[in-house]
Amino acid sequence: MAELLVIGSVALDSVETPFGSVEDALGGSATYFSTAASLLTGVRVVAVVGEDFPEDHLETLRGRGIDLEGLQRVPGRTFRWSGRYVDDLNQAVTLDTQLNVFETFDPELPDSYKDSPYVFLANLHPALQLKVLEQTSGDAFTGADTMNYWIEGERSLLEEVFRRVDCVMINEAEALEFSGESNIFRAVRVIEELGPEYIVVKRGEYGAVLWHRGEIFFIPAFPLEEVIDPTGAGDTFAGGLFGYLAASDGHQTEDLRRGLMVGSVLASYNVEDFSLGRLLSITREDITMRAGHFERMIHIDSDGSVF
Amino acid sequence: MAELLVIGSVALDSVETPFGSVEDALGGSATYFSTAASLLTGVRVVAVVGEDFPEDHLETLRGRGIDLEGLQRVPGRTFRWSGRYVDDLNQAVTLDTQLNVFETFDPELPDSYKDSPYVFLANLHPALQLKVLEQTSGDAFTGADTMNYWIEGERSLLEEVFRRVDCVMINEAEALEFSGESNIFRAVRVIEELGPEYIVVKRGEYGAVLWHRGEIFFIPAFPLEEVIDPTGAGDTFAGGLFGYLAASDGHQTEDLRRGLMVGSVLASYNVEDFSLGRLLSITREDITMRAGHFERMIHIDSDGSVF
Repeated sequence: MAELLVIGSVALDSVETPFGSVEDALGGSATYFSTAASLLTGVRVVAVVGEDFPEDHLETLRGRGIDLEGLQRVPGRTFRWSGRYVDDLNQAVTLDTQLNVFETFDPELPDSYKDSPYVFLANLHPALQLKVLEQTSGDAFTGADTMNYWIEGERSLLEEVFRRVDCVMINEAEALEFSGESNIFRAVRVIEELGPEYIVVKRGEYGAVLWHRGEIFFIPAFPLEEVIDPTGAGDTFAGGLFGYLAASDGHQTEDLRRGLMVGSVLASYNVEDFSLGRLLSITREDITMRAGHFERMIHIDSDGSVF
Repeated sequence: MAELLVIGSVALDSVETPFGSVEDALGGSATYFSTAASLLTGVRVVAVVGEDFPEDHLETLRGRGIDLEGLQRVPGRTFRWSGRYVDDLNQAVTLDTQLNVFETFDPELPDSYKDSPYVFLANLHPALQLKVLEQTSGDAFTGADTMNYWIEGERSLLEEVFRRVDCVMINEAEALEFSGESNIFRAVRVIEELGPEYIVVKRGEYGAVLWHRGEIFFIPAFPLEEVIDPTGAGDTFAGGLFGYLAASDGHQTEDLRRGLMVGSVLASYNVEDFSLGRLLSITREDITMRAGHFERMIHIDSDGSVF
């Protein structure tokens, strides 16, 4: 088992879906990522919160063994996001984003974090992602997520991030936007030219595609008849993948395939309740159970021939 | 190997895509279906064409061993469809539909067709689908496709079709429309209540889902970097599935899983050229090759546990 470092947001989310709403609930990319990964391995968090952030939330994360030495508490208000999901539970409508303490965030890694062998840069200003990369070991296996905002506003810094990480995780629509292509497999080739060994394209309810030097792997989304709140699904998915890689301390293509299955299982639990309600209640047995069902859902009896 | 009967359209298509266009090209659901299936098993076609239908096209089909005894040639013009694919190659814009000889089509099965052990009812007026069912053996393994037009206009006849077939094949958007649900797995339960043992939901570039008494199987679409003309992809997919079932004379869930892979492979070839250009040029070796790649794209090394 190896240690996993994540930089991202720890936030207070206000979310409305057809099934209800929450206000100032625990959220943020680093929160979802680390909570998911903490079921699998030791996690170290780099993030920032304001004076108003409830100590209870920190206790919740610490209670799962998550290392918060790299979490700064500074004067000011915590990062806040509010959004609404209407008919299409795949796509949030952002109502408000308040960067607050993130506006001046300067990620400084504790010495104990610097040798982390697995590093994930959740969606964040690419300048901050690069700043974390510079403080970590060149031997680390690294991944990065992003969003359309940085594709449009910080293109060259984002390209630098993609050049320097081993694994890019990106939504399908954002991969198309980044590449200017209309076909997702051509889009992936454009990203690959920058250097990442692995590219994971997230397709929402249709699952994800892993690209590794021309080799393709498809993982569906774990089927659910009811999604209560999709917030954090992508971060939970990434936390499951990187948590699995760190736990098994491997990053060959077979490791990523199994890791994507674990990520998909964790994301499926996460969307069954608001905030971290469901993710905080599941155990390793729950993961094993859904993973077993999952394997059956993609299995073909192979006799090696069609005819 | 068992015989496979299909009823559907044999048509002249005019199609425009970003890569070019064709006029009055060989098309129609029964044409794509039977051409695909003829790579796998013996196929019998029930359809109708007009006096204007080129004899060359019939020779093309006969040359593949397809039995056209049930194809009527009647006075009048052949069924014509014209459509355009603009940015979204998943969705055709229909420019014109001329039913012509289909307006008065009365499907009459030759005696030699009536014992066909595999029967597929391609998209067609549900009254005609039922008429074919009534002329075939009750022991046959049967499947049916449909479209939004019949969901909206012939609901009760369509429900009767779904009640009487073993396998419903339906587009995702149409399954949602039919059921009134917003979640595809709940939609499938609504269809299942009518009785079909298998339901195949087609998701375009995202592949398909097989539902069998609560058991789910996902098959991706075979990845392509360029789609030239998607016309007939769904019919080719169905022809590959039912062709495989008839060829191996089995319809257990494992047969359908492998059949869906074969259907997906055949559909991937079909969209690489206009009309039946590509489908007419491939061999069993081509199918075997892509099927081999495909298995690798969904394979996870299974040691039975996550931890």
